[in-house]
Order: sequence, then C-alpha cells, then structure tokens
Amino acid sequence: MIVLPLILRIKEMTEIRIRFLLLPLLFFYSSLPPLKLTTEAAELRSFKSNPRFLGKFAELNKPQKRDQAFRYETRYFTQSLDHFSFSDLPTFQQRYLISTDHWLGSDRMAPIFFYCGNEGDIEWFASNTGFVWEIAPRFGAMVVFPEHRYYGKSMPYGSREKAYKDPASLSYLTAEQALADFAVLLNHLKRNFSAQACPVVLFGGSYGGMLAAWMRLKYPHIAIGALASSAPILQFENIVPPDTFYNIVSNDFKRESIGCFNTIKESWNELTAEGQKDDGLLRLTSTFRLCRKLKRVEDLSNWLDSAYSYLAMVNYPYPSSFMMPLPGHPIKEVCRKIDSYPDGSSVLERIFAGVSIYYNYTGTVDCFNLEDDPHGMDGWNWQACTEMIMPMSSDQHTSMFPTYDYSYSSYQAECWEDFHVKPRPRWITTEFGGHDLRAVLKTFGSNIIFSNGLLDPWSGGSVLQNVSETIVALVTEEGAHHIDLRASTDEDPDWLVEQRASEIKLIEGWVNNYYQERTATFSI
Amino acid sequence: MIVLPLILRIKEMTEIRIRFLLLPLLFFYSSLPPLKLTTEAAELRSFKSNPRFLGKFAELNKPQKRDQAFRYETRYFTQSLDHFSFSDLPTFQQRYLISTDHWLGSDRMAPIFFYCGNEGDIEWFASNTGFVWEIAPRFGAMVVFPEHRYYGKSMPYGSREKAYKDPASLSYLTAEQALADFAVLLNHLKRNFSAQACPVVLFGGSYGGMLAAWMRLKYPHIAIGALASSAPILQFENIVPPDTFYNIVSNDFKRESIGCFNTIKESWNELTAEGQKDDGLLRLTSTFRLCRKLKRVEDLSNWLDSAYSYLAMVNYPYPSSFMMPLPGHPIKEVCRKIDSYPDGSSVLERIFAGVSIYYNYTGTVDCFNLEDDPHGMDGWNWQACTEMIMPMSSDQHTSMFPTYDYSYSSYQAECWEDFHVKPRPRWITTEFGGHDLRAVLKTFGSNIIFSNGLLDPWSGGSVLQNVSETIVALVTEEGAHHIDLRASTDEDPDWLVEQRASEIKLIEGWVNNYYQERTATFSI
Repeated sequence: MIVLPLILRIKEMTEIRIRFLLLPLLFFYSSLPPLKLTTEAAELRSFKSNPRFLGKFAELNKPQKRDQAFRYETRYFTQSLDHFSFSDLPTFQQRYLISTDHWLGSDRMAPIFFYCGNEGDIEWFASNTGFVWEIAPRFGAMVVFPEHRYYGKSMPYGSREKAYKDPASLSYLTAEQALADFAVLLNHLKRNFSAQACPVVLFGGSYGGMLAAWMRLKYPHIAIGALASSAPILQFENIVPPDTFYNIVSNDFKRESIGCFNTIKESWNELTAEGQKDDGLLRLTSTFRLCRKLKRVEDLSNWLDSAYSYLAMVNYPYPSSFMMPLPGHPIKEVCRKIDSYPDGSSVLERIFAGVSIYYNYTGTVDCFNLEDDPHGMDGWNWQACTEMIMPMSSDQHTSMFPTYDYSYSSYQAECWEDFHVKPRPRWITTEFGGHDLRAVLKTFGSNIIFSNGLLDPWSGGSVLQNVSETIVALVTEEGAHHIDLRASTDEDPDWLVEQRASEIKLIEGWVNNYYQERTATFSI
Repeated sequence: MIVLPLILRIKEMTEIRIRFLLLPLLFFYSSLPPLKLTTEAAELRSFKSNPRFLGKFAELNKPQKRDQAFRYETRYFTQSLDHFSFSDLPTFQQRYLISTDHWLGSDRMAPIFFYCGNEGDIEWFASNTGFVWEIAPRFGAMVVFPEHRYYGKSMPYGSREKAYKDPASLSYLTAEQALADFAVLLNHLKRNFSAQACPVVLFGGSYGGMLAAWMRLKYPHIAIGALASSAPILQFENIVPPDTFYNIVSNDFKRESIGCFNTIKESWNELTAEGQKDDGLLRLTSTFRLCRKLKRVEDLSNWLDSAYSYLAMVNYPYPSSFMMPLPGHPIKEVCRKIDSYPDGSSVLERIFAGVSIYYNYTGTVDCFNLEDDPHGMDGWNWQACTEMIMPMSSDQHTSMFPTYDYSYSSYQAECWEDFHVKPRPRWITTEFGGHDLRAVLKTFGSNIIFSNGLLDPWSGGSVLQNVSETIVALVTEEGAHHIDLRASTDEDPDWLVEQRASEIKLIEGWVNNYYQERTATFSI
C-alpha cells in the first residue's frame, strides 16, 4: 500500500528534471521497514548530482596577488585541438604560468616541477598549491603550471562562449587530450630551455592528481615521477562501492557528534514535510534566508548537500579560504552550532545555523542564492557526462544523506538532455586501468606517490595502500582534500609536517636516482 | 662549374614530382670529389620514398586456406571512430579472427593471445604468423587476430572508397586510435567470455610489433606482456642515424659478395647514363623486360630499390612465399646471379638477372609492371605522412644506393601534395617515447620481448639490448624480418629454434608470475 503511491509520485515528478528531486521523498519512507525498490522504480529516479571537485571555486575566488610568496610569468602555447586525429581543426592557445627564478639551469640538469592543471582557472590552483612553490628552491627547480584546456583562459575556438557552444565544440574536452597537451608543452619547454635532460616531476591534486598519476603512467619518457594528491582514480565503475563518498562525508560528521549526524539525517524529512505544507516553501525561504522564493525543496537539499560535501573536503585543521573563508576544523564548528542551538529550536533552524558556518562564516551575507546549477554548461559537468562517470549512492544505514541508489540509465538520460552526448562509462578504466590496480602496477611503473587524508570523501576512491617499493601511498588520518599541496602554515599539525617531509624525501630519491643512472655529478 | 648545372637541373626537375627523381642525377656526380650540397639545394630535392613494411603484400597475396594449420571464426565488433573525442561520428565494424579451439576457459584463467594487426588484411597476417597458432595449444590459449582500422575489411564509413576519400575521412587512421580499438575490443572479449581474469599476451611483427610494444606500455592493465618482433620503435627523429636502414640492406649484399655490392652500387650511374642517351629509355625497357615503355629512369630505380629492400627483409634461410615465391637465402641467390653472369655482359644485364630472382623466381612472368606508386592513396602512405615520420638517408660511402640526404621540408611538401596533410614529425616520440629508451624503461614497465634478426634492415631502429630483467632483447645474427613469428619448418636453423624456445619460456614466465600473484592454482 505504501509502494504504489511512491511509484506514482516518482512517475509524475520525473517530468520535472531535477537531479535531487526524489531524495527527500525517498527519505520520507526511510523510517518504515526497508523499502526494496524495483529496478523499474530505481530507473525512474532522476540521478543524484555527482559531488564535484573544488575546481568550480577557481572562477569564483580569483586569487589575490598581494602577499603571495611566488612570482611567475604568464605565457601561451599553441596546441592542437585534437592530438589523436589529423582532422583539420583550429589550434588554440594554452595558458601556462612559469617561473625560472630558482631554476639552476639545464647545465645542472635541474628539475622541472609541473603541476597538472585541473578543471578551473590555473591561477587559482597556482595560488593554492604553495607546497610546489615552497620546495622549488630546495630542488633548484623550474615551476610550471599549465592550464587545462577549456578552463580559465585556455579556450579553444577563441572564447568560452564558442568553446562551450555545443557538443561538437566541447568534444575535445577530455582527459587524454589534456594529458597530450601537457606532453607536447613539456617537450616544447625542454627544447626551448635546452632542458631535454632535466627531470620532470609532476604534481596534482584532486582531478589534477588523477592527471598527474595517469601522466606518469602514460608518459614515463616525459616525467620521472608524480605526486598525486587526493586523486580518486578508483572512483569508476564498481571498483569501489558507490556509497563510499557519502559514507565518508557522513562519518566526518558522526565522528564530531552523533547528535549532529542524526540532526542532519532527520532534516531531509523535515524539509520535505515543510515543503508540502501550505506556505511551506515561503517559510523555508525565510528560515534559510534565501534571496528569492524557493521553488522546489530539492534546490535547497542540493544546496545543503553541497555544503556538507565541500566541508568534508576542506575540513582542514586551520582556518582557510580555499573556497570560502572557513574556520579550522569547520565540521567541528558546524556540529557545535547544530548541537548547541537552544532547546526547542527546530531541526531546520539548527541546520541553517550549521551551514551558515560554511556559506557565511564572515557574517557578511544578507541572503543566499541557490544557484549551483548541476545542469549548467560547465566544463566539469561535460566531463562528468562523457568520461568521468563516477557512480555515487547513498546508503540508508550508513549515510546521513537521503537514500539513493545509483542508476546509470537515469544518468545517461540526464546527460543526453543536458549535452546531447552519450557517456562512455567504461572508457576511463579501459584507457587508464583501475581494476586490480595493485596487481597490475606491482610489476609495472614506478615513482608515484598517492597521498590522501582519510577525512577527504575522495580518499575512498584513491589508492590507500602501497603498490610497490616505488608506487606508494601516504595516508593521514586527519587530512582532508590535498591539504599536503597547500602552503605550510604555523598551525600545521605534526602529521602534516611529516607527510610533506616524506614527500620531499621521496621526490629527492627519484631525482637522485635519475642523476645516478645518467652518471651525472650534480647533486641537490 | 659542376654545381651550378646540378642546381639548375634540380630546379627544373622538381616540377616533375617523383620521389626518386634526383637520385641517379646525384649519383652521377658521386665519383667526383664529395659534393657538399647547400641546404638550399638539399631542400629542393624531392624526398626519398620511405621503405615500407610488408603489409602491402597483404592485399596482393591473399592467403590460400588449404593446408592451413589453423582455423578461426571471423567476427565484427562495433568501434568508435574517435576514442579521444566525443564528436558525433559514425561507428565502424572492426573485423577480428578468433579461435577458442584450444582455450582452456575462464575458470582456469587460460590466456588470450592477441596479435596486434598491421597495415593490411588481417587474414594475411594470421596466415603468416604460424608461431602464435603453434604455441596456443601449449598454453591452452584463445587466439585473436584483430584487423587494424582502415585496412582489409575494417573500413570506417562503410567502404574503402569512402574511408580513403579525403584527409577528413582518413584523419582517424592513427596508431593511438588503433591501440584504443584493441583495448576496447579486448575488454569486450574479456566480458563476453567472463575472462576478466585471463592474462592477455600481445604479439606483433613489424608495425604490428611496434603496436604490441606500445600497447603493453600504454595498457598494462589490459595485457601482461608483449612479443614485439622486428619493431623499429626507434626509427623516429634522430634516435638512430637516418642511414641505418640502407646501410643494413647494403651490408646484407656486401656480406654475400663485395662484387655484387659494387655492381649494384655502379648500376645507378649506368642507369642514368643509359637513360640520357637517344633511345636509352627504350633500351632499358627491353633490358628489363618492362610491359610498358619506361618513361623515367627513376621509375626503374624505384623498382630496383624496392626489390633490394624487400629482399633484405625476407632474407630467410629457407624458401618462402611471404610476399612472392623466393628461394632460401634469396640475397645469396641474387648475388650469385649477378656475380656469375658471363664475362662481357653489362652491369644492367647482371642487375636484371639478379632482381629476377625477386620479381620472377617462378619464371612465369612475361613482362614487368613498375607500378608501386609511392603517392597512392594507400593507408601506410597516409600513416607515413602523418605520424610515422622515419627519416631515411643513403650514405655515399657505406650504402650501395644512390646518395641521399633526408630533407624534412621536402618530405612535408610531398605529403601536402599527396594528402593535404601536415605531418607531425615529433608526435610519435612525444606519445610513445624512444629517446633515451633504456634509461626510461629501466625502472618502468616490464614483460616485453624485442626480437630482431640483424639481417633485417628494420633491426637498426629496434631495441637490440636488454633494457631490464623483464624488458629484453633477443637478437639473432642470421634472422630477417620477424622470422620468429612464422610457422616452424623442417628447415629451421638451430638459432631460430632456440630463439622461439626462449620466447616461449619468457612468455610462460609472465603467465606463471601472473598466476602466482593472483594465487591461482592453475598451471600450464
């Protein structure tokens, strides 16, 4: 008797194409005996918006140049739009940032540090990757930050508007093309600086970390090693369980306070109930201080989901403004707010107080906009609809989020609606592997560091165990999303200082081995 | 006084676009003091037609099915035309030959032997790669011979005519796309046979050997090792000297007889002189029993050059009909003819008698056609004008061929004329490496056999020294072009029997290590 109305509601509501649409509804029934949805019903569901990496903030938070500890030149390099065919396509200008301030030169075979640019403006990544800048002088290294095609100022067809016009213009936005850009650019730089013998060390965080690891595997002749920080190269197909990501986010809250976890878990139900009442949307608009009247509860759920997921990524032990200004241990702060709210206040009031830590830590925001359109003509949305198919579920028992079962067919349908493109869900593992990774790489490849902090929800799809003597995992209990790549601070905990020291030691080992093999006398 | 007319001639004659055009002319002056051509003059030269692999014979010599020691099914698989973009392109049907006759099945994790199809009809390669068929039962292996896109029956756009219509239709004929085809097909087969855990061993000869080696390096998660026979992966840029190929061909003749070498070396001069006389072309037509009147001496030079180069490739110790019916040790036979011709006979008569061993061993040819158009709309010509840029020169002192200096600018100009495409001469080494190969792969990668015979002119661009414990070179003094991949015969010399035994032992090692690492109990 309960199942029927639910399915009817689902059928009705799939007309409205909102990815989060059904989550509150499904949660509504979650206190009832476990409801096993049929495949049919599961397929009718709209798909859950994938959590994103942090690249989107690159456009929002342009770096402020003052006080920055690094200097670079901005240059452009002419790239082929398609490296893997000989179609008659226009070239495009790839931006890269370069500093030779500390480079000891080609005569001494001094290293080149090359950061694999992510899904966003490269200046933002450069300003948030202090580690590379800080260690460059010690290695006498050149520093290069190339921008990923289709992001920032590296736009094919001359402008963002033209590059993002349609699926045809977007079709060359792929990881393989980006890696080939890096390879071609590096060869150009090596020739240009007579630096053919200079060892290249790759760096990258998040998607950039995936690129760094893949680049070392695919282009070992171009780079001698890679530090891949928070790189979820196993977040594809069924390599890791699809509920991994949201379980880690949930655990990050639960470890701070079981009450906080429970309040959030309850809140989805409350939200839905409120939204169904007369004037409910208006009251939610008021409770959450929204700038415009809420049209759908799901927009609000989406906004909250984003906050929790991002908080888990940047749950750093010191104040940061990577995405927005945040206190140290921000999840602890959020939970403190939620838990300490006066007795008698509603769940939703608590939730609002909590997420205000994320959305309004400075207290300067008058009202909130729930933009973050998961269907926007955004580069990462395109990548998520073509190659980067990362199945995500939310488990009824272990997650604080609404229950959600991953449905590829819904995902595919949404991608078709958004971009008129058909995803290739098996392509990443075909091209880069992932299944059985430790066995495959045990006797193949070398010089990769997979660094991860276990608070980071992306750590679940990363490599957390040593693969071989030279493909190693550095795991910290308390780390969040690629914290090791950030600039050092006076507040760095010991484990972070030690993690970075290990990384430096490993990289020194790669470079020294390289020199020894080439019987060079230069030593660092 | 001599230089001027030469340059004038060159300028005048570059109007006629024949790649071999100037070689006899240049040779005409080679008995004078060494003539150092200016860069200008060098650039005016038409470029030397690159020697080819044997794939072209795949179309000419369709295999005869009778007596064949192997059986297979022919199947087709739907492939993306462009694996590296999301352009809206038609798929195409890739042909592959498959035999599960000896396969011990997925339960026993029995191996899959996968031959990386070359530039030609796959049936021809299957019938000329007896080694794989012969050892499959011993390994309990499935055998798969996939066809390379744009060859045989694996035509994009539905037909050869449409696939070869223009540069746009040809633009997806690249090695990277072919490797991705193999990767996608292998994953499909593994799923289809529930064979995800079955180890794949790659095989390939010549260009197919290059593909096998590159595939192991790029897709280690898909195949556990590769036997790359006669795979000149170093024949790019300046990795090996450009005169390597023609020096090896020349030495193959010189080691049989210095007189033979000298006669051939003299003959180019004679040809040119004869061609310049009144009725000279007519007399050459008669001497060489051509079906049609010779129009240009260069067509004849080209025809002879081809014969010598191919003879060096298939200089096998027993009779073969890989390309055409030939005796064992065919270069010895050619030289015997050339050397033993009655005193008083002309150089050109001797040459004709010699090459008749190659072109007319069965004695059934009445007259000869000099087709072999180096500008033809042929797949390999396209590949040679896009990615496969292998610089070739002919040295005045060490080669028996007319002196020729490689000129990239001429090469590029010819490619533009032929295909309206701009070559990417640095792309192969960017994508696959090659420079400093031993140092790069010493600590990266595993399980590749580079097998070569030193009589093979392509061995000069191959890997002839061990790289590491598991990337090894098997070199035979007396071997020619991928002889190890051919079916065994009663006439196999000991060194060939031993070479194949070494290969089997190494492959067994890969497979057994694979099983041990997965703690499987299945043993061969």
